[in-house]
Amino acid sequence: MVPHGEGSVEAMVVQDENRKPISSILIVIAMQTEAMPVVNKLQLKEDLDPVFPKGVPWVRYHGIYKDLHINLVRPGKDLTLGVDSVGTISASLVTYAAIQALQPDLIINAGTAGGFKVKGACISDVFLVSDVAFHDRRIPIPVFDLYGVGLRQCFSTPNLLKELNLKSGKLSTGDSLDMSPQDEASIVANDATVKDMEGAAVAYVADLFKVPAIFIKAVTDIVDGDKPTAEEFLQNLAAVTAALDLAVAQVIDFISGKCLSEL
Amino acid sequence: MVPHGEGSVEAMVVQDENRKPISSILIVIAMQTEAMPVVNKLQLKEDLDPVFPKGVPWVRYHGIYKDLHINLVRPGKDLTLGVDSVGTISASLVTYAAIQALQPDLIINAGTAGGFKVKGACISDVFLVSDVAFHDRRIPIPVFDLYGVGLRQCFSTPNLLKELNLKSGKLSTGDSLDMSPQDEASIVANDATVKDMEGAAVAYVADLFKVPAIFIKAVTDIVDGDKPTAEEFLQNLAAVTAALDLAVAQVIDFISGKCLSEL
Repeated sequence: MVPHGEGSVEAMVVQDENRKPISSILIVIAMQTEAMPVVNKLQLKEDLDPVFPKGVPWVRYHGIYKDLHINLVRPGKDLTLGVDSVGTISASLVTYAAIQALQPDLIINAGTAGGFKVKGACISDVFLVSDVAFHDRRIPIPVFDLYGVGLRQCFSTPNLLKELNLKSGKLSTGDSLDMSPQDEASIVANDATVKDMEGAAVAYVADLFKVPAIFIKAVTDIVDGDKPTAEEFLQNLAAVTAALDLAVAQVIDFISGKCLSEL
Repeated sequence: MVPHGEGSVEAMVVQDENRKPISSILIVIAMQTEAMPVVNKLQLKEDLDPVFPKGVPWVRYHGIYKDLHINLVRPGKDLTLGVDSVGTISASLVTYAAIQALQPDLIINAGTAGGFKVKGACISDVFLVSDVAFHDRRIPIPVFDLYGVGLRQCFSTPNLLKELNLKSGKLSTGDSLDMSPQDEASIVANDATVKDMEGAAVAYVADLFKVPAIFIKAVTDIVDGDKPTAEEFLQNLAAVTAALDLAVAQVIDFISGKCLSEL
């Protein structure tokens, strides 16, 4: 049977794309401390011929790992203050520029996150995220409210989840490391198990260009625990990035040789 | 005398740039309702040969007004929900892409804002902003805290301010239309007279590429007044955009034929 109409043709193209082995992966990581173990593990090299415009602090590492072209980008150090350019704006920009320059088949946003023990998160847990949303974009006007929340389903990878025995949960994103009562109410409304500062922004940009995106988040601090977030985050950052590093490597190993529909 | 060292040469180049008449202006406006009166006033035409990648909802209008090449961009309607893509992420992305494609001499971010009566703001006031900062990026770790606030001075235009008799004040930016107690504390710390959802993000991107940027904000609602923000905003939006439209046209008229150092 010949399919009729544009919708069907598009569906066939998408289906074909999903059946080709994945060739190019873009990994987006916000902090240098989070990125370097992955860069070393996959033996990626820093870019000598920048694909990004002059002036930006964004850093790209690349290499071939098994049959995959891997690009790892991070937003780099703030040009004035020298700290990692964390948060949604930098993550959006570097994801956008990397999609334009590198046309990846799949995006992996990896990083650390706060976890909620009431939803079953423990320090060093690694989550494969099912859905992302924002918790600090409150626009109480009909439809704008939904735009603000920006709920998006992540690319579904049931085989990956099962094979690697990762935890599954929803991610909520905001530009603050702490959590105000208003943030908390939105995080509860988002039914989130983990909280980060970039995920939903990366998902927004990936969605603009219909690039499938998955999110791997390792828990550095328990948001609903006793310890102050900033202190617990800094204390656990190095140890938890080791768990993150291992998970990302396992995910890449699993992806190698497979097509999107097999994930 | 021949100047020595890279610093001096760079300073001369900057000085030379500042002495050339301004040729190309990029106007960034978040909402269609805010943008269309300016588009009509300056007789700009919608882009038929898009400079932006396929897939994005961003809209460009352009034309020649007096001796100036004018490009006006807006982030457009959310592809799923159909509302204007307000907020920092969309504004950053469209500003970034427009700078790359159009290489403007000057950026004008115009739009509506909430005003604080305690700082002297009234409905329909038009402010020329002196400084911008964020109020919803709380990162209580040394130096990261400053990165989160993202304080930036706007390009200084003393002659423009005087000639047009605009009010001057500081702008604070966040992704929520409402204001939580934590937002309020940060807005007070930022010493802000007006509050919007894009300004500091446009300033961040302009600063990455050292493009001078000015910010014109018209007050639609009094944040520290009696009326609910969303209601007051919607009630005044059309009327206040007329004041905004007039101010933007006056600013463009003033800029025409001048160089950056004369503003």
